[in-house]
Amino acid sequence: MTSPVIAVVGGGQLARMMAPAAAELGVHLRVLVESPGTSAAQVVTDAPVGAASEEATIRALIAPPAGQARADVLTFEHEHVPNALLTDLIEHGTPVRPGPHALVAAQDKIVMRTRLGELGVPCPRWRTLPSTVDGGRAALTEFLAEVGGEAVVKLARGGYDGKGVRVVSGADQADDWLVAATEGGPPVLVEEKVPFRRELSALVARRPSGEVRTWPVVESIQRDGVCSEVIAPAPGLSDDVAAQAREIATAVAEGLDVTGVLAVELFEVPADPDGPTTVLVNELAMRPHNSGHWTIDGSVTSQFEQHLRAVLDLPLGSTDPVAPWTVMVNVLGSERESLTDALPELLARFDTARVNLYGKDIRPGRKLGHVNVSGADLDEVRAAARGAAALLMGDDDGRAASTGSREESAAPVVGPVETKESAL
Amino acid sequence: MTSPVIAVVGGGQLARMMAPAAAELGVHLRVLVESPGTSAAQVVTDAPVGAASEEATIRALIAPPAGQARADVLTFEHEHVPNALLTDLIEHGTPVRPGPHALVAAQDKIVMRTRLGELGVPCPRWRTLPSTVDGGRAALTEFLAEVGGEAVVKLARGGYDGKGVRVVSGADQADDWLVAATEGGPPVLVEEKVPFRRELSALVARRPSGEVRTWPVVESIQRDGVCSEVIAPAPGLSDDVAAQAREIATAVAEGLDVTGVLAVELFEVPADPDGPTTVLVNELAMRPHNSGHWTIDGSVTSQFEQHLRAVLDLPLGSTDPVAPWTVMVNVLGSERESLTDALPELLARFDTARVNLYGKDIRPGRKLGHVNVSGADLDEVRAAARGAAALLMGDDDGRAASTGSREESAAPVVGPVETKESAL
Repeated sequence: MTSPVIAVVGGGQLARMMAPAAAELGVHLRVLVESPGTSAAQVVTDAPVGAASEEATIRALIAPPAGQARADVLTFEHEHVPNALLTDLIEHGTPVRPGPHALVAAQDKIVMRTRLGELGVPCPRWRTLPSTVDGGRAALTEFLAEVGGEAVVKLARGGYDGKGVRVVSGADQADDWLVAATEGGPPVLVEEKVPFRRELSALVARRPSGEVRTWPVVESIQRDGVCSEVIAPAPGLSDDVAAQAREIATAVAEGLDVTGVLAVELFEVPADPDGPTTVLVNELAMRPHNSGHWTIDGSVTSQFEQHLRAVLDLPLGSTDPVAPWTVMVNVLGSERESLTDALPELLARFDTARVNLYGKDIRPGRKLGHVNVSGADLDEVRAAARGAAALLMGDDDGRAASTGSREESAAPVVGPVETKESAL
Repeated sequence: MTSPVIAVVGGGQLARMMAPAAAELGVHLRVLVESPGTSAAQVVTDAPVGAASEEATIRALIAPPAGQARADVLTFEHEHVPNALLTDLIEHGTPVRPGPHALVAAQDKIVMRTRLGELGVPCPRWRTLPSTVDGGRAALTEFLAEVGGEAVVKLARGGYDGKGVRVVSGADQADDWLVAATEGGPPVLVEEKVPFRRELSALVARRPSGEVRTWPVVESIQRDGVCSEVIAPAPGLSDDVAAQAREIATAVAEGLDVTGVLAVELFEVPADPDGPTTVLVNELAMRPHNSGHWTIDGSVTSQFEQHLRAVLDLPLGSTDPVAPWTVMVNVLGSERESLTDALPELLARFDTARVNLYGKDIRPGRKLGHVNVSGADLDEVRAAARGAAALLMGDDDGRAASTGSREESAAPVVGPVETKESAL
């Protein structure tokens, strides 16, 4: 059988989770991994080792010297491939999806905010800081006065999982980044610290022919700047706001000409839990995203299969949920020697838990896996997902993480933070 | 992370479909494949090539000479490993699941019928034919008189997908097999040709600790002795008969000490569609089975994940369905050059279709893949699954196969036939 060949840059869990979808569709995956034995390399038979920044490596990924089949399309689980190379690949006939003209808005927050503004998509107030200490301080002083004393300073490039983001209340608190910017470091921007009610995520897929599909809008709960839990659909979200979020995701996908899966992370505002709300765009990720892992077990078509279909320009699948509720809880670090040690107790106690382990070495706070649970009763579903993930993390006996009520943990106790998933 | 290692004998689609489940659970699969590039070898990174009949090959599968991790357990996608070797492996500390004492009942139909009789499980009437032409003819004459003119002669070993099975009405119609039996070929048995209403399948998983889980009983529709379609659950099946079928599956799993997944293929009898019915056991398969492919998309826990959990003696998962109906239709051969050529039209027309392709070269009648569709309306679900599979097979425009009503194709137009899946 002649299989389509998809080349994927990046060997983390996102590429790993593409493998089952590729196997089912009869698609051959070729994944560029950072080192032998990485998460994706464990489950993908064609996994050359190399650096995503090297031109020869990317060219060999598409057209292997050993004469294997040429890739039909190049896609990514991260955004760290030089755009000039991508442009050249396209000019020489290899489709790159998403393309570099879209990717730049996921690579550079100043480009992102500028383009979203042009598209009329609601965003927090923001400003680029001049790349000098004096100019930067002056602009920051002015912005702090305008937004009321506190703001969020961000590096335009290179941040992830809470890194490259800082809440400031004084004009000198970004000096190190401003100095770095004068020395060739990334530019700095400042954004309003939005008093949000909660974080949402709108996941969408778009293919080159133009077809777009959105999944139900989810609530995304962060801990220390990292996604810890996702509830699908977002509980109590009004139909209006859900529709608005899906429309925004569609507008961004179309406006930026994104192909593949796009996650649009949103703030639901204002913080007041009783009044009517609306949404502002926080971040974009142009690939399958942690806020979409629930779709593996909770939706007719998972984000991973949809991404493969989208980059091959195949028709997209139904995004309907298969159960009233699905909750995903991340496994972030573990006290255990091995995650699989948790399985006997976990599987015995939670017989509907869908465990997904990424085959990564255990390090504190690292994304090592996730658990999905679907069902009709949100409290039960959530307690099971949390209990199962807690067992994998080695917390007590799996009860610790399931005691907090939804309202408590969903409260806006932290400022707006980076929620972009690191695949590393 | 320390991963459990499961060694699997056989590189067909059954081993291939274990791969996604293994990846999710963080289990390392080592699959013995018949040749490079076989169905499972395309998606399993550790896939040594060799013959299942060779002792050194099986020993190296468990304890690779290159120093890779030793397998924690040996399991199978087919039953063609010498039992003496399996017994020796167990004596030297490698769990083999299912064990040779159970497997023999799936390898030899005379052993199977004898053991099922001992367990008190309802079966068609049957008799072993003496392995001489004269003795065999005499016994067959007597049996034909007893059952009323027609019967089914079977080779005790080596049959699959309708091979090794023959409907006879005269005592000399099994002469060739009787002659072969005198020359060292497999013994021959004869069974009553059961006037069944339809074929059912009861799928069960059991782990060494004793836990047993059964899935909903399905209707299995054969074409030319090969499974072509499965409806889960079996439409209109009475609660009593469904419970009886699940009890039989449990009794067989426990009585034969089966570990892993067991499919019990059943006849619903009598043929009269209006009266009360009961079931008789037709065949056993001690591994994931074609009649359980619907569980990949239609059940909380798929048969493939359940099999891995069972052979590792991990607690079993929920077997609840995720939708009122799931229909699986096999892709049996294709007029196409490549199955993936069908995807643009198929995915556009059937957006809930779950396509699973096995990466096999196209040959007439060969099992190349399947399609699952789940939903609330059986007629719609079935039409979509048939239409999608028809497109993959290259039939017209996908409408041909979806026109037959359920009643027509489910009618007992053929005698009892082998429905054991070939993994080759």
